[in-house]
Amino acid sequence: MENIFIDTLIGQVRALDQFGTWANREDEEILKEKYVKSKEELKNIPVIADIDEMQIQDIRLIYQSVALAFEKETGVMCSVVMEMSHEGFGRAVVIADKIVIVNKFFKDAHRFSFRTYEKLVEEGEKMVQDAIKIYNEYKK
Amino acid sequence: MENIFIDTLIGQVRALDQFGTWANREDEEILKEKYVKSKEELKNIPVIADIDEMQIQDIRLIYQSVALAFEKETGVMCSVVMEMSHEGFGRAVVIADKIVIVNKFFKDAHRFSFRTYEKLVEEGEKMVQDAIKIYNEYKK
Repeated sequence: MENIFIDTLIGQVRALDQFGTWANREDEEILKEKYVKSKEELKNIPVIADIDEMQIQDIRLIYQSVALAFEKETGVMCSVVMEMSHEGFGRAVVIADKIVIVNKFFKDAHRFSFRTYEKLVEEGEKMVQDAIKIYNEYKK
Repeated sequence: MENIFIDTLIGQVRALDQFGTWANREDEEILKEKYVKSKEELKNIPVIADIDEMQIQDIRLIYQSVALAFEKETGVMCSVVMEMSHEGFGRAVVIADKIVIVNKFFKDAHRFSFRTYEKLVEEGEKMVQDAIKIYNEYKK
């Protein structure tokens, strides 16, 4: 089954892989390594440490992919605005015209992840579909 | 003449003045020092240097004041999302419900300023009025 969000996300990850780190790895394997963490793994992430730039970049990629998938589906341009404190508090919005089609708050971005790969697929696709719904409701 | 933007902005600046630096200064004098720069002064700002946190905070205060003034006028809550690179590229949006009521791009935020105090008053008030217009056009 085709999934426009996941296709876009893996495309983005591979596009940014300038040193070929991921070249020989399967799509699902890469996305799992980046975005899927079990409860056990989450426990081992220190809460006190500053969030690193890599993690912020990986989070941004999720919303960037929602934005791109939205564009592919609707033909309407959109963009991401994201702010994140060192402590992992922040917000990401995706904007199309004058409409906020995604609005997400973070309070513990160190731990941003999905429990399973299926969850990532499902929640990503839901964000895209919700974005389209909101856009159609508010557009002029 | 009352100006809700300027009243809000000076209120914000004074609220953040925890060491009383501005306590004995006139409103207009403070805002001029923070936000008004002549062409001559702009020339002396190095373009290469990283933008400092103070300047980013002062820029945020402008949009925060538009947001608060909008709330006072309409009773509708809103919030600011701003991102800014070290190089002074960035974006600020003010969001009410699902509507982007202010949308501003920066490409040289080191130099963010107004030529005269009157310009600051006028442009601030215009942002608030435009925000109200956009909100009324898009709201459900």
